[in-house]
Amino acid sequence: MESEIGNKTDSGATVTKGKDLVEDIKIGYIGGGSRGWAYTLINDLAQCKTITGEVVLYDRVFESAKRNERFGNWVQDREDAVGDWEYTAVEDRATALEGADFVVLSTQDPPPETMAHELDIPAKYGIYQSVGDTVGPGGTVRAMRTIPVYRDIAGAIREHCPEAWVINYTNPMTICVRTLYEEYPDINAVGCCHEVFHTQEHLAKLVGKYRDTDQPSRKEINVNVKGINHFTWIDEMSWRGENLHPLLETHLKEEIRDRSFEPGSLDEDSYFVDNELVTYELYERFGIFPAAGDRHLAEFVPWFLTADDAKDVQQWGIRLTPSEYRVNRQEDALTKFHGPMNGEEEFEFFESGEELVDIIHALLGFEDLKTNLNMPNCGQVSNLPENAVVETNALFTDDCVMPLTSGELPAQVHNIVSTHVVNQETLIKAGFSGDVDLAFQAFLNDPLVTISMTDARAMFNELMTAVRPYLEDHWNLDNASVVH
Amino acid sequence: MESEIGNKTDSGATVTKGKDLVEDIKIGYIGGGSRGWAYTLINDLAQCKTITGEVVLYDRVFESAKRNERFGNWVQDREDAVGDWEYTAVEDRATALEGADFVVLSTQDPPPETMAHELDIPAKYGIYQSVGDTVGPGGTVRAMRTIPVYRDIAGAIREHCPEAWVINYTNPMTICVRTLYEEYPDINAVGCCHEVFHTQEHLAKLVGKYRDTDQPSRKEINVNVKGINHFTWIDEMSWRGENLHPLLETHLKEEIRDRSFEPGSLDEDSYFVDNELVTYELYERFGIFPAAGDRHLAEFVPWFLTADDAKDVQQWGIRLTPSEYRVNRQEDALTKFHGPMNGEEEFEFFESGEELVDIIHALLGFEDLKTNLNMPNCGQVSNLPENAVVETNALFTDDCVMPLTSGELPAQVHNIVSTHVVNQETLIKAGFSGDVDLAFQAFLNDPLVTISMTDARAMFNELMTAVRPYLEDHWNLDNASVVH
Amino acid sequence: MESEIGNKTDSGATVTKGKDLVEDIKIGYIGGGSRGWAYTLINDLAQCKTITGEVVLYDRVFESAKRNERFGNWVQDREDAVGDWEYTAVEDRATALEGADFVVLSTQDPPPETMAHELDIPAKYGIYQSVGDTVGPGGTVRAMRTIPVYRDIAGAIREHCPEAWVINYTNPMTICVRTLYEEYPDINAVGCCHEVFHTQEHLAKLVGKYRDTDQPSRKEINVNVKGINHFTWIDEMSWRGENLHPLLETHLKEEIRDRSFEPGSLDEDSYFVDNELVTYELYERFGIFPAAGDRHLAEFVPWFLTADDAKDVQQWGIRLTPSEYRVNRQEDALTKFHGPMNGEEEFEFFESGEELVDIIHALLGFEDLKTNLNMPNCGQVSNLPENAVVETNALFTDDCVMPLTSGELPAQVHNIVSTHVVNQETLIKAGFSGDVDLAFQAFLNDPLVTISMTDARAMFNELMTAVRPYLEDHWNLDNASVVH
Amino acid sequence: MESEIGNKTDSGATVTKGKDLVEDIKIGYIGGGSRGWAYTLINDLAQCKTITGEVVLYDRVFESAKRNERFGNWVQDREDAVGDWEYTAVEDRATALEGADFVVLSTQDPPPETMAHELDIPAKYGIYQSVGDTVGPGGTVRAMRTIPVYRDIAGAIREHCPEAWVINYTNPMTICVRTLYEEYPDINAVGCCHEVFHTQEHLAKLVGKYRDTDQPSRKEINVNVKGINHFTWIDEMSWRGENLHPLLETHLKEEIRDRSFEPGSLDEDSYFVDNELVTYELYERFGIFPAAGDRHLAEFVPWFLTADDAKDVQQWGIRLTPSEYRVNRQEDALTKFHGPMNGEEEFEFFESGEELVDIIHALLGFEDLKTNLNMPNCGQVSNLPENAVVETNALFTDDCVMPLTSGELPAQVHNIVSTHVVNQETLIKAGFSGDVDLAFQAFLNDPLVTISMTDARAMFNELMTAVRPYLEDHWNLDNASVVH
Repeated sequence: MESEIGNKTDSGATVTKGKDLVEDIKIGYIGGGSRGWAYTLINDLAQCKTITGEVVLYDRVFESAKRNERFGNWVQDREDAVGDWEYTAVEDRATALEGADFVVLSTQDPPPETMAHELDIPAKYGIYQSVGDTVGPGGTVRAMRTIPVYRDIAGAIREHCPEAWVINYTNPMTICVRTLYEEYPDINAVGCCHEVFHTQEHLAKLVGKYRDTDQPSRKEINVNVKGINHFTWIDEMSWRGENLHPLLETHLKEEIRDRSFEPGSLDEDSYFVDNELVTYELYERFGIFPAAGDRHLAEFVPWFLTADDAKDVQQWGIRLTPSEYRVNRQEDALTKFHGPMNGEEEFEFFESGEELVDIIHALLGFEDLKTNLNMPNCGQVSNLPENAVVETNALFTDDCVMPLTSGELPAQVHNIVSTHVVNQETLIKAGFSGDVDLAFQAFLNDPLVTISMTDARAMFNELMTAVRPYLEDHWNLDNASVVH
Repeated sequence: MESEIGNKTDSGATVTKGKDLVEDIKIGYIGGGSRGWAYTLINDLAQCKTITGEVVLYDRVFESAKRNERFGNWVQDREDAVGDWEYTAVEDRATALEGADFVVLSTQDPPPETMAHELDIPAKYGIYQSVGDTVGPGGTVRAMRTIPVYRDIAGAIREHCPEAWVINYTNPMTICVRTLYEEYPDINAVGCCHEVFHTQEHLAKLVGKYRDTDQPSRKEINVNVKGINHFTWIDEMSWRGENLHPLLETHLKEEIRDRSFEPGSLDEDSYFVDNELVTYELYERFGIFPAAGDRHLAEFVPWFLTADDAKDVQQWGIRLTPSEYRVNRQEDALTKFHGPMNGEEEFEFFESGEELVDIIHALLGFEDLKTNLNMPNCGQVSNLPENAVVETNALFTDDCVMPLTSGELPAQVHNIVSTHVVNQETLIKAGFSGDVDLAFQAFLNDPLVTISMTDARAMFNELMTAVRPYLEDHWNLDNASVVH
Repeated sequence: MESEIGNKTDSGATVTKGKDLVEDIKIGYIGGGSRGWAYTLINDLAQCKTITGEVVLYDRVFESAKRNERFGNWVQDREDAVGDWEYTAVEDRATALEGADFVVLSTQDPPPETMAHELDIPAKYGIYQSVGDTVGPGGTVRAMRTIPVYRDIAGAIREHCPEAWVINYTNPMTICVRTLYEEYPDINAVGCCHEVFHTQEHLAKLVGKYRDTDQPSRKEINVNVKGINHFTWIDEMSWRGENLHPLLETHLKEEIRDRSFEPGSLDEDSYFVDNELVTYELYERFGIFPAAGDRHLAEFVPWFLTADDAKDVQQWGIRLTPSEYRVNRQEDALTKFHGPMNGEEEFEFFESGEELVDIIHALLGFEDLKTNLNMPNCGQVSNLPENAVVETNALFTDDCVMPLTSGELPAQVHNIVSTHVVNQETLIKAGFSGDVDLAFQAFLNDPLVTISMTDARAMFNELMTAVRPYLEDHWNLDNASVVH
Repeated sequence: MESEIGNKTDSGATVTKGKDLVEDIKIGYIGGGSRGWAYTLINDLAQCKTITGEVVLYDRVFESAKRNERFGNWVQDREDAVGDWEYTAVEDRATALEGADFVVLSTQDPPPETMAHELDIPAKYGIYQSVGDTVGPGGTVRAMRTIPVYRDIAGAIREHCPEAWVINYTNPMTICVRTLYEEYPDINAVGCCHEVFHTQEHLAKLVGKYRDTDQPSRKEINVNVKGINHFTWIDEMSWRGENLHPLLETHLKEEIRDRSFEPGSLDEDSYFVDNELVTYELYERFGIFPAAGDRHLAEFVPWFLTADDAKDVQQWGIRLTPSEYRVNRQEDALTKFHGPMNGEEEFEFFESGEELVDIIHALLGFEDLKTNLNMPNCGQVSNLPENAVVETNALFTDDCVMPLTSGELPAQVHNIVSTHVVNQETLIKAGFSGDVDLAFQAFLNDPLVTISMTDARAMFNELMTAVRPYLEDHWNLDNASVVH
């Protein structure tokens, strides 16, 4: 049979790679116990007929990996599963990595319980965080916990599968990817995040709303992405060659500008409610469109979460995630696996909207894929420092990823972004040397740390005490002048 | 009918644009009288069934445009011409540009006779040039002639079709594209050149030769391109994920290293003979593979064309283009049009290997195209200056071109490239202010100008006298200290 | 008489310029009505025997200039006044500038009353400012007021004395000097500030305290200065070749670290009380010594002035300047002039500690002077942007000022400094185009603006209303989206 | 006795350091056998009454050090020797360095005989070098020889006197200083050269000639120096505040422009003849004044030494130094020592015009000194790379050297300078890794290497063979692809 893909000879970008099937691919999956990524991957692989192989699952909690194994193989047994994949849970990470072609990182280690501290302690000092996994005092301490874990992962990849493509989904995204490259500079790693997809969907929705057409696919929305993960910006946006900025202006005027929410009015909403008020406020102030959810954006600047009372942040149409949710959500996540396998629920293949399989597909030489990703800067954002991890578009081709140039950030958005970039670079440097005082400099310079120095030092000490077990082997806590 | 393209929904890069036909496109073609580009475009458009429209042809020599009109319409009358295009020659440029969606620039104005001076006068001073259209004393004077012409073109585009996509094929490529952007910063212009295609073909040939497979299409050869037009370099090259550097080493050892040519032994060869000796010598010395023909590469450094006698350059397997050829080739070019139309020759559609139609196709939203092009640097070569025109890969998508990051040039290749970049930037600055003394600084700093200052000044004066009619309205020749 | 200076032939730096007297110098003095600078200049010039000439005084309030004229000439009448100077107050600025050799800028125009708003309105929103003249919401609005005034001054200098040396003492220093250069790039302007002198004096005090010696002159303390005005940093400090860092550590441990103040305990102290707690806290956190008073330093970061109650800032050993003081201090300043002239007080020449006369002396070719100053960056701080105004050491020689290289700021101090530098550059850009929305971006990104976006917009609007008369001719207030 | 220096309290620059005498200084002198630097130092120290101590002399040839010892002590015995110094020659370098306060490097090791090859071999290939010690094929090979020697010296300084001030006089200056810092980054090293003094003297001469005054001291000529050693440039020059550029124009027109020399006409002149024709030609072409002798300047560009016959370079008023001179001049140098000691000649103290003692004086805290020197770039030339060694003005103060900012080089002078800077950086990298192929890249990119690649490779191989004994322990000659 002649491959259909093989016929596309009329362009350089999606040229035939002469293949219709690649067999025996090994995917090493690290983590995936608590989150939906594994669930999605299983769904997507089962619908992909051009690649076959095995997925070897490792999770800090073996039972979680085992559950994914059972679910994966159960899905493969369905008649409409066109892909051919075998899932195996293993008890040691080395086995999962050994000889892998692709490594997927979706791991939260140490356990989510720590995250409760990282939300609750700052809240005591009046610093509210809507997510707490990227920046802010919580994100900073999470970075301190994560760097040693990711150094270890990078070392294991270098040992067991140095040529593998590594796709990271874990937060804090920038810190994770940056650590991988700092520890093992020749690694082939990218960080993937779907926040920008939601922005594309929002823009597609505006097209459907304000133009005489059905809502297009978000993939039809061309955007120029630049910034850092969860704080990306779009300065060019078009649909079929039409500049979409006028639609933003219309929407801002008709639906957004006069809207606000009473504190308490969102108490019954999902924790993840998003009314785009933060997005459009930043757009109106800075003239460039933010491309992440409001709950993420709000954490990068001091103007939305600053409030006398936690509920006040609801005026921006968002809620804070309570720490109990972080602790308990693993339980919740499991239900979606058990239902179908127990026969209590129907399972139907779905369009996941995620791109992991598309990425693997592109890297195997089937079809080029342009999407946004996180990689060390080699010019893609021209006014951010070399090697800092940035998020922009990139092109995945046959065994190759090339970021696209996105130009520079405008001066005052750059002013905010670069504060975070320098903090992230400082945390990496501190994490590799174990220098807690240096990490505290980044902690202080986080825009959410608007409290007095006395309080900032006290808060930091409380946090260090709370997560000490995860730091003490890697950080020089005893000789830090800030720690008492 | 449902468009086939519309079905490709599984990737971000080649997503459906929902179209199967775009009608009424206007292409304004400036120049094209003397070279093969128009011939190729006519062939390629006639084979493209997804776009229709008109091509309006303007050439300094109206009869040349008229000839292209006749040939274009004659080709369209063929039964197997699936595209629907109409060709019209016009006597004024404004008509060709007015409202154009695309502008193609392939123009040599003033006439090719000038080029004879730019080859012959330097030769009198012992400076031989294999092409003479890009750098060297000839390329520098050609740049001086070209800048005013291209300022004028940029102004006309701003006036008549400010949103058009402008695709330049004229040399000196860097100077032409840089002038367009300097004069009209919002222009949508790219410069295209097929030199890198030949390098991809060479690499494809090595695959066919040293691997157990047929020679693949050059489009299957993935290359990371960086540098300036006619002096581009490739530091990553692969075919189906296989690094091709080992093939270079094999070929160098088996076929190239011990090869050389006696002066005079190529006298019967084509002027365009290329034995890759310069390419591989530079590769061996600098560790990165040059991606242009030897005749171009040799002009950027002093080590190949330096000879007591002009024939000595044949030792590198190349020939010098005699100036008579430059003067006469327009005649030769015409024969390929007349034969078929007179019924003396068969005309068959051919695979041109050129990408102009693919580029138009991509910009209209059909299918993304990754290829190399020349554009102002916004990060694609991270150690060359912002705004200098560089050549790298780029991605053409729906009404959008985004250069890909290529990283930095290695130090000593950068040392050579940046000398030329600074010269080109100086020529632009000099050309916009008319400062001949400043242009002479760039002239002196060209690596081929290895003669004494006394001779360099004399040679420059002879050149200025020879091309004076094309300079005197734009350059301040009378107040230059170097001109006497 | 042979000049003593004429004998110093043994070094390049302080070489004789063969002069013992320069006569007929004209100093144009703009402002000086309300502050002590004129008083000091009069004292210092009267003690300088190597230069003579006239000082032409212009002040927005003519009577103030007249008072300086009377006082200056009264001082010159003293028998022990060795210099020969004549003071003349004039009613138009052009007369003061025309043909001046030196121009001194020490002007606060519009009147100090405006400053009350710039302190009081932010305080209503919980933003306390210890000085309010450099950064913070008050400093930002003051910058908005100042830019048009300084554009006008720069234009007048270009017209009346384009070659004059211009010495600025007005705040916001960075904005003033930056505006002068932006409006008139060829201006010979420097900005002078004595904050660093106080740091040198502090270091000299430590030498006297911890070393077996008398306290040396602050001029003996060698420091490497880098940063921006009122937020400068010292990374090298020595006295007679001895590195002084160990003394800082001793002093920190013995006197500073355990010290703090009860809110209210400083109520009877001077508004200018400074206990170096902010200085040493920043030093301990960032490892580099700040070289400005605590009241200035505290305004550049959010960690000292953040408090529920204004009195709480006293914990850091500083007080807030009440706005009434700003309004009234002009009156206070006058008393020191009147007392002596009325015969109610003795007047004795004093060592002012200021360097204005030393600077003039050096620029006239007498003796080189190394001191700190504010000038556009041309490499002196290698990781701050070109052209931004920075404060470092510089060398004044015969008609020439050359900044000294100071190296780069450490990453996390740079993180704070560059936020302010970008804000200052944005304010200049906004001020030259009248773009209020752009100015508001800088306002938001000031580290003291830690309040909610809603409050930040309200506060900005109150401020705009309060100082509207000084802005409305220069800023496009009516079309700004942030202004309602 | 109260020190006179102690009275200068009125400026920051030349402030009293409270000293009138510093005793027991140890100067370690490495080299000095063959050149005049030791002779000068002995003369200058004997006339300096503020410092006393010992000079410990080490030279590869012990007898040379011994001769300096004898001469130094003989001079000290003179009645008019006001300084108090003791000279001791030692047989091992460690003894000379141990505990030294100052180290002077003036050493040519391996022996001068090697230099003959570095002149003669290139000459065979038609590449003439007027000096051959800085750039060009000769300077490049000399750099290859020097790097290992200077790594060794830097290591010894780190071991024996890590805090010493190191003053280098050896060529190639840039390579020597750069190697010291690369090997031992905390070294306190500066490179001193008097070429710029000669330019100041030339400018002083113009003042005497064209202005109604006696020729001033060169120290009165204020110049802004920027570039690299032996290829420095001056863009600001003044005397008592008067811009001297008009004098250059006058002199160019009246004395220089119409001048040239017949080949052979300088045969009887000194090898060091300098008629400033190269200087003024470069000035006229590039608009900025070169500040080095013509014999040095000519080697940095291809336009002066390019000639069919070696004598032709005399047209520029210079001569080539024959290699025999290099071999024999050591003998000549000795005569000036022996004459006085044998009583055959009078010895009188002289004004040496050199600044080594002034530098020591300044670093000991007596009096600041502004002069030109070579140090790693930390901003002093803003468009040259960080850490490359550049030559600019600097200020020597109490135990401290601070380079002055000089701004940027104009584009086309920068184009030439940066070619050399990149070559020098490449040679350092190659020298530290022993990579001969990398060194050959720099060799090829030297502007004097205008010959064919075939000849360039042959010439390089001849040179490698000639100096092999000095390279083979440090360079990987056997695995270099260019070496056969």
